[in-house]
Amino acid sequence: MKRALILLSGGLDSTTTLAIAKAEGFEPYTITFRYGQRHSIEIKAAEKVSSIMEVKGHITVDMDLRQIGASALTSNIEVPKKRTPGEITRDIPVTYVPARNIIFLSFALAYAETIGASDIFIGVNVLDYSGYPDCRPEFIEAYEKMANLGTKAGVEGKRFNIHTPLIRMTKAEIIKKGLELGVDYSITHSCYDPTPEGLPCGECDSCILRKKGFAEAGMKDPLISG
Amino acid sequence: MKRALILLSGGLDSTTTLAIAKAEGFEPYTITFRYGQRHSIEIKAAEKVSSIMEVKGHITVDMDLRQIGASALTSNIEVPKKRTPGEITRDIPVTYVPARNIIFLSFALAYAETIGASDIFIGVNVLDYSGYPDCRPEFIEAYEKMANLGTKAGVEGKRFNIHTPLIRMTKAEIIKKGLELGVDYSITHSCYDPTPEGLPCGECDSCILRKKGFAEAGMKDPLISG
Repeated sequence: MKRALILLSGGLDSTTTLAIAKAEGFEPYTITFRYGQRHSIEIKAAEKVSSIMEVKGHITVDMDLRQIGASALTSNIEVPKKRTPGEITRDIPVTYVPARNIIFLSFALAYAETIGASDIFIGVNVLDYSGYPDCRPEFIEAYEKMANLGTKAGVEGKRFNIHTPLIRMTKAEIIKKGLELGVDYSITHSCYDPTPEGLPCGECDSCILRKKGFAEAGMKDPLISG
Repeated sequence: MKRALILLSGGLDSTTTLAIAKAEGFEPYTITFRYGQRHSIEIKAAEKVSSIMEVKGHITVDMDLRQIGASALTSNIEVPKKRTPGEITRDIPVTYVPARNIIFLSFALAYAETIGASDIFIGVNVLDYSGYPDCRPEFIEAYEKMANLGTKAGVEGKRFNIHTPLIRMTKAEIIKKGLELGVDYSITHSCYDPTPEGLPCGECDSCILRKKGFAEAGMKDPLISG
């Protein structure tokens, strides 16, 4: 079985990406980043997802992105609330962390090289987050090319492939695909600004896109009671 | 004055790179990585170089590369000793850390974006370290392209330039250039495996290339007494 490394935040998109990698026949390994997020709920969600979905190995990498760039995801800037999906899609948001996916992919690349995996899966999506430059197909393509020029494995012909199965899917399509593959979305976590009890705020960009996705898929979000 | 960010290990190459960035008229900022090296001497050298060469800002970023890939630079594998310059140049060495420059450049990119610097300097060199895939011009070119597609600054037209002034220079040429620019090489540190007192071992790849460089430049290494 070919090994694949999946970047896993414990959210809806990356959990679905893991399910897709498994369905494609890869032996899954997951990598999660503790990068100075406001809360550690997503780290715990990633651990739970990795365990329940029976990945072969899971590591959490520590780094402090607060040192190198402020953003609402890591510092005290307020997380935007109650924006419409249109507003969320339009601009580069305040939740943008400079070069975040570039940094995450670089650690994933190093770890993939170490475990002998040539396939890296990342759940980026260009539709819901068109404001994030590092979620676009042209970026991923350039990253893959760079990775194959800058690593021992790449130079020796073990070509790295960066898989982005969700890149052009709507949130509703992602949810339908995940449910088809048996994903239990009650173990995932999406909110940027959860309550002290760990419940989703319901009003941040991530909650709003998740809500819209479940509504359009005609499904009920198992995270939301009532 | 335009800001530039220089990746600084405190070694001969990166210190010369800093001197070149200053000579080109940039306002210099430096970034150093504490990545699980066997010893902290190079972190101290980078601090000293930053202070003596009057950079505008210096940060040291913590990360643990031991988690994601073993190498003689970070783990207990023995550092190779007494190899000839020819042997050093030929293969991808045991001191290769998977994707190290990719990871370092990614943090530098994020920090450069945060401080509004479009120019990043890295002292990679293809002659002495042809075994490191991430020191080659084609890699740097691919990295720059990726960086301009994957960041807010890049997308908004503030193009990132990755400068590699040493890339095709011999060690002797680097040393001559640095001396011309007034670099005090006694404050730099190159050894992969220093003595407990912090003195260079004289036998690792880095010491051997440094020795050869000073010899070919017809100069005396101020680090070596006697």
